[in-house]
Amino acid sequence: MKKNNLLNQAPSVLNIGIDGFNGSVTAGGGTLTSLDWQPPGNADPELAWQLAQLMGDERIEAANAQACNRIINARPIWEDMALRADGVIPELKGSRLLLHAGPPVNWRDMCGPMHGAMVGAVLYEGWASSESEATQMLKSGQIDFAQCHDFNAVGPMTGIISASMPLIQVRNTSHANVAYCTLNEGIGKCLRFGANGAEVIARLKWFESVLAPILKAAVRHTEGGVDLKAIQSQALLMGDEVHSRNAASTALFFMQVAPALAAQPYLDSDHVRQTLDFIAKNSQFFLNFSMASCKAIMDAAHGIAFSTVVTATARNGTETGLRVSGMGREWFTAKSDLPKGLFFPGFKQEDACPDIGDSAITETAGFGGCSFAASPALTLLAGGTVIDAVRYSKEMYEITVTKNPALSLPALDFAGAPCGIDVRKVVDTGIRPVVTTGIAHKDAGVGQIGAGVVRVPMAAYSKALTAIATKFNS
Amino acid sequence: MKKNNLLNQAPSVLNIGIDGFNGSVTAGGGTLTSLDWQPPGNADPELAWQLAQLMGDERIEAANAQACNRIINARPIWEDMALRADGVIPELKGSRLLLHAGPPVNWRDMCGPMHGAMVGAVLYEGWASSESEATQMLKSGQIDFAQCHDFNAVGPMTGIISASMPLIQVRNTSHANVAYCTLNEGIGKCLRFGANGAEVIARLKWFESVLAPILKAAVRHTEGGVDLKAIQSQALLMGDEVHSRNAASTALFFMQVAPALAAQPYLDSDHVRQTLDFIAKNSQFFLNFSMASCKAIMDAAHGIAFSTVVTATARNGTETGLRVSGMGREWFTAKSDLPKGLFFPGFKQEDACPDIGDSAITETAGFGGCSFAASPALTLLAGGTVIDAVRYSKEMYEITVTKNPALSLPALDFAGAPCGIDVRKVVDTGIRPVVTTGIAHKDAGVGQIGAGVVRVPMAAYSKALTAIATKFNS
Repeated sequence: MKKNNLLNQAPSVLNIGIDGFNGSVTAGGGTLTSLDWQPPGNADPELAWQLAQLMGDERIEAANAQACNRIINARPIWEDMALRADGVIPELKGSRLLLHAGPPVNWRDMCGPMHGAMVGAVLYEGWASSESEATQMLKSGQIDFAQCHDFNAVGPMTGIISASMPLIQVRNTSHANVAYCTLNEGIGKCLRFGANGAEVIARLKWFESVLAPILKAAVRHTEGGVDLKAIQSQALLMGDEVHSRNAASTALFFMQVAPALAAQPYLDSDHVRQTLDFIAKNSQFFLNFSMASCKAIMDAAHGIAFSTVVTATARNGTETGLRVSGMGREWFTAKSDLPKGLFFPGFKQEDACPDIGDSAITETAGFGGCSFAASPALTLLAGGTVIDAVRYSKEMYEITVTKNPALSLPALDFAGAPCGIDVRKVVDTGIRPVVTTGIAHKDAGVGQIGAGVVRVPMAAYSKALTAIATKFNS
Repeated sequence: MKKNNLLNQAPSVLNIGIDGFNGSVTAGGGTLTSLDWQPPGNADPELAWQLAQLMGDERIEAANAQACNRIINARPIWEDMALRADGVIPELKGSRLLLHAGPPVNWRDMCGPMHGAMVGAVLYEGWASSESEATQMLKSGQIDFAQCHDFNAVGPMTGIISASMPLIQVRNTSHANVAYCTLNEGIGKCLRFGANGAEVIARLKWFESVLAPILKAAVRHTEGGVDLKAIQSQALLMGDEVHSRNAASTALFFMQVAPALAAQPYLDSDHVRQTLDFIAKNSQFFLNFSMASCKAIMDAAHGIAFSTVVTATARNGTETGLRVSGMGREWFTAKSDLPKGLFFPGFKQEDACPDIGDSAITETAGFGGCSFAASPALTLLAGGTVIDAVRYSKEMYEITVTKNPALSLPALDFAGAPCGIDVRKVVDTGIRPVVTTGIAHKDAGVGQIGAGVVRVPMAAYSKALTAIATKFNS
């Protein structure tokens, strides 16, 4: 047996916030664990006081339990393709309105990719015939902006929805609400990353003429639609967290679409072939279905008086905004953090655009960063180790209301995924929700440059908590 | 800090073989870990002496390294469907020969499911018109038996191959050898589990007329065939161990087949639909492709002088047999163990047939039990915990030559899968290879009653070791 000999041992240090002395630990051969920790109430006495009042509030506990029941019992079904967005979102019809990801942002404050995508959408709709004309229109206020979230919709990255774009239509049959999302463009130059060249517009036109009509034929031939939560739940057993990794969910989705198409031999066979090819070669194709599913789930949990459960987490590349179940349509915003992870060859951290996209609706519903433990393979793309992935999920239990028995995390012995991010618990623990995400170049038109992880800014939760305290205790 | 107080602590005991005193440990509130351990050389001095001579043999080390290189560098490609087995296995043409799983076995010693499947095959081939007539033919020696393995083939469970059955054809392009396997029948009543009723025969006829021709059209339309190891390797990142769980591999396979079919609109559209439906509803469909892939891999590693690497592990429901790379076509056999696991409602351990099928070729190639750590979800079907699954893989490193860098196990931080089971190491450590397996009812015709885990009998390795010692040192 070895005797303890502390003097000869390299130090093993747990750092809970101050990075300054890390070098002295590691230089001496010690091991260092940095915990991403902030003091309760963000060290703000006023906030800590508000928090103390809210922590014991029985009305909140009951409301949050109800919100989580709605999340757990949601049944999001892909029921149709809307061939044009303005067919289901009337505000888009005949107007010059573009929907975008995240909370409100004006033209001047938009990030590079958002500018690029806006220009692309104006060109795609034929409102301008050149990039400079489109830019001029956008700058001069001839185009209106609004948030996808205000129209039961979500969009990945820049998240642009314009009148002609086909939309995935998902119905949460346990709550009778509907949610929409655009179709996934694949990798490389894409509107969602701010690219707006001819090939980007051509792909969007092909969505209109081929992909969306074929998918519509497929879903209409299924019996009662496609159960998206069943796919998401299976995919958690198969290495996806259904945000940044959708390899299994896309394959499971494909296995429902292809037989439905094969059963309709009167469809244009070349269009069917093109559709199947496109899906089979894009392992993130299911992401947008996952997002629409999560939007349908979380909208059902929204609007419950006294609930402090977050029902939307959305980023516009400049700011990140939260919506809270009991707080109506108000956005609680803060400056977006920079995602960290692995970069494609030729790119580096300084090229990254701040966190962007409505896709954090997946984390809000318990997938993505909350379910990172299900997806060790994602670390191959986004960096970190398998232990990190498990740790992220474990952390998320600290800031959520309960576990979702409908979603199992195999690496945690099939524990239910974290369910219902509670604003109070985030402020109390100082643990910020973790989001798995693609990383866009900060300049318009470059596209995706990597994948990684980002935390939602604490200030958004602090603002939400103050507003909650004011409203609930008034 | 707590002080050590051994007297007040419940004992924590590691038991390495004698179960008799377990009760006294657990009755006292202690925790007990039972290691499935046997002493080196199985406590046989003669065997221990033989082992000692072989452990340091440089010729063996070099030969085993070569065998493992062949396993690691194998490139098994699904290149075609043989529409009739007798088209590629001439011995089946015009004869009354049936191939079966495992090492040789005569009619009298066959288990219930093997009897049932033999009767089914005779009926399917039209050699008899009733079950009793078929049984009489089989009993009276009018039908010849041989092992699938002797014809570059493998079959799951009873593993019957008869003249008219279509076969998956896989070429290992790095070694130019070919391997065959039948098509997977799905669940319920199947020939492979010994069922032989009208619906079983009808499905086999449908394989001939619809499934196999459509799959042939699909594979012939792919560019250079379908890379099965690429699918197997991806599936290890997606919760499969590609023996008892093939949910991801079947979906990935499906995503290659469906676009190839969609590109051929002149095919019978109803046959295409039937084929896609059949695969999409059978999550074990890929198993037989996995087996053919593994057979193609392991045959390349066979026939290397002085190699003690196991190249086939096959069970006929009575005995389990091994083939060893440096030992030619000799089978080293021992009585099969009973698999343990979870049983479908209404069935129990006493109903189980001893371990059966050629599917342990997947373990032999490093999948299945060797890669159990990749498949926490399999524990939902086969029993045990996620920790057990990881432990099985870790154990298998103790009895294998190296790690396969082409196959990553996410739960073990993407370590390569165990590669090359070494007869010497099995005998030396007393650790028997673990096999994930379906469980057949012991009576003919009942079918699958569960899934679980079984160990390969030690006596097969002891016999192999003695034969190796005799041959290599003579």
